[in-house]
Amino acid sequence: MISVDEALARIRDGLTPLGAEQVALSDAHGRVLAEDLAARRTQPPFAVSAMDGYAVRAADVATLPTRLKLVGYIQAGGRHEGTVGPGETVRIFTGARLPDGADSVVIQEDTEAGDGMVLVRDRVGEFGPGRHVRQAGIDFVEGQVGLTAGRRLTARDVGLAAAMNRPWLMVHRRPRVAILPTGDEVALPGDPIGPNQIVSSNGAALGALVAAAGGLPIHLGIARDDGDTLKTMARGAEGADLLVTIGGASVGEHDLVRKALGEIGLAVDFWKIAMRPGKPLMFGRLGTTAVLGLPGNPVSALVCGMLFLRPALDRLQGLPGTGPVAEPARAGVELKANDGRQDYLRARLSRDPDGALIATPFARQDSSMMSALAGADCLILRPPSAAAVPTGGAVKVIRLSDGTDAF
Amino acid sequence: MISVDEALARIRDGLTPLGAEQVALSDAHGRVLAEDLAARRTQPPFAVSAMDGYAVRAADVATLPTRLKLVGYIQAGGRHEGTVGPGETVRIFTGARLPDGADSVVIQEDTEAGDGMVLVRDRVGEFGPGRHVRQAGIDFVEGQVGLTAGRRLTARDVGLAAAMNRPWLMVHRRPRVAILPTGDEVALPGDPIGPNQIVSSNGAALGALVAAAGGLPIHLGIARDDGDTLKTMARGAEGADLLVTIGGASVGEHDLVRKALGEIGLAVDFWKIAMRPGKPLMFGRLGTTAVLGLPGNPVSALVCGMLFLRPALDRLQGLPGTGPVAEPARAGVELKANDGRQDYLRARLSRDPDGALIATPFARQDSSMMSALAGADCLILRPPSAAAVPTGGAVKVIRLSDGTDAF
Repeated sequence: MISVDEALARIRDGLTPLGAEQVALSDAHGRVLAEDLAARRTQPPFAVSAMDGYAVRAADVATLPTRLKLVGYIQAGGRHEGTVGPGETVRIFTGARLPDGADSVVIQEDTEAGDGMVLVRDRVGEFGPGRHVRQAGIDFVEGQVGLTAGRRLTARDVGLAAAMNRPWLMVHRRPRVAILPTGDEVALPGDPIGPNQIVSSNGAALGALVAAAGGLPIHLGIARDDGDTLKTMARGAEGADLLVTIGGASVGEHDLVRKALGEIGLAVDFWKIAMRPGKPLMFGRLGTTAVLGLPGNPVSALVCGMLFLRPALDRLQGLPGTGPVAEPARAGVELKANDGRQDYLRARLSRDPDGALIATPFARQDSSMMSALAGADCLILRPPSAAAVPTGGAVKVIRLSDGTDAF
Repeated sequence: MISVDEALARIRDGLTPLGAEQVALSDAHGRVLAEDLAARRTQPPFAVSAMDGYAVRAADVATLPTRLKLVGYIQAGGRHEGTVGPGETVRIFTGARLPDGADSVVIQEDTEAGDGMVLVRDRVGEFGPGRHVRQAGIDFVEGQVGLTAGRRLTARDVGLAAAMNRPWLMVHRRPRVAILPTGDEVALPGDPIGPNQIVSSNGAALGALVAAAGGLPIHLGIARDDGDTLKTMARGAEGADLLVTIGGASVGEHDLVRKALGEIGLAVDFWKIAMRPGKPLMFGRLGTTAVLGLPGNPVSALVCGMLFLRPALDRLQGLPGTGPVAEPARAGVELKANDGRQDYLRARLSRDPDGALIATPFARQDSSMMSALAGADCLILRPPSAAAVPTGGAVKVIRLSDGTDAF
């Protein structure tokens, strides 16, 4: 048995980022950049007003009140053709190009206009050249790299890429992930269910996880616990970047998946890790397709999906693939000392009055209970041989998605 | 000017959840349930073994060591047809149905098998009826509501729905969101750019936000600063659930969008809020379409998008729409006292050695700087008239997505 961290490192080492493809900016959200993205424009490309008001020469408003001659009017997108001379001013609006000759802007609240003249009554705080002006290039300059390769693009990044005038982006190709649940005991939702069967949930949940993580799930269907069937169905993974098998690691007295896929060339890297829920996790390679074998228990399969499949998908898309980040919280109840396996307790999160996170594990941690996993807010990470933790003691938690992340 | 909270409450009150549509389980991730989802099965439907081992009558292993007669073999998905009598045992594997007569399972590590007999040498801890058995219904029972209306479905929830044997789900329809950036000063990425123009970024960024939040963006194109054009282009929003205009709130000396849309029936609820970046935020209704007018500055537009558009989309999808959750952090630098507008400072997050979040605002908070917003990890929320905060003092932050949320 190897540790969770070693398993993660070996998965990372066993995978390389997929090649790049070109996508339109409107399809780029959530994709991972495969190139450094340099600006094709300087932003702003010229000095612009930061306020609605009057473009002036700072020297002309050094002593107040003063009256300036109104010689023009500029909206955003427009331009004043002449030069603002001494004693002159131009009406200007936020985002409009500062006219030649002017070096600053007096905000409209400090002025009174009439009869072709503008009275500047007052001004707040320091004033000098550049006041209320956005200089050319304060956001970025042409050629400057605004977004770097390996970044997963947020909505904000999409906006920045647009501002940089980049309508097309190179991103890492989506990983094609073949999903192969195994087992005589499971039937698909809605299909006839035998008297000794339960409904299969792992394929559906892992397919959702794969898609949410940027991959393309390919559902191969459920393989019965039979070597020949497994070998035939695994052929559906040809051309996939990753084959995810679920269950079949300790069927009867056999390790069915490893045995059957071994006969068609599976090279196993490792197949047991010191964790709970989990343990029979397998990683290897079948030709050009990486293979990740997840345990069959639904909670184990999904927790291992988050801890190992998700980082594998990240890695294939050009991200580091370092796994989920654990953050500090306090234990809501006393936690017993842990044994040699790293434990991930399903737990609820709350906040104590001072704002600290409180993580309280469910009393029942059975790895067959999907309802507890669905209702959990986080997993409490208990390292191997961790000492007991009193109520209120420090723990690390991995937050689970509530599906609402967007910005 | 109204407060952020009042604006949010009025947006919520002005919108009602959209109707429901039916989707396959494989399309349900991220959608919001429009029905309480009850289990069509009891899970597990019968008592099953939680371990690989031997099904026994607990009374038979009260005194150890003992020898039992091996009378059967059950894999997951199979069944032992007979009844396990006194002195008998059946080989059983994790997930397999407990045979009649047996009430508990001895794990295989505590046994030795041979010659049709099983020697039970030892057992760890308490032992009695039910040991290493998952009783019927410990996850859920038929008819039990496992997922409630108004829940955004995670990958875990998809798994639970599958286990409950629910291949089809009723979810709220995706909001159709027409996006209408305005302004003579902006051109689309890749399009010819005039000498006084900049590249439009708001439509792309907000489109990504809408899609990530579960909506269907409809890009109406850029409306020039002209009332007739605006009115014509706004017709593209017919049949949309929400029209989002961007900019045009203080064009020249006019409030162009309110004026033009007012001529075709816009009923304005409010149009100014006490926040920064932001302020000219408008909410109203044009026939059956709700209208949200965002400010034109890219940072303002996106921050208002997160604070108001996102909750509006949530509300339309049947979620509460209460807006982003602020969590506690410590200020990385001294923060000045705030004026009367609620402020959202773009900031980076780090952790101090004891694990607390440290939020450090960027020195420059100009609302035209997309690069700062893209590079930010969070917004520091500064309430109206908030007192100065020393370095290390308590603040509230709203975390920004890094695009990696999936599980």
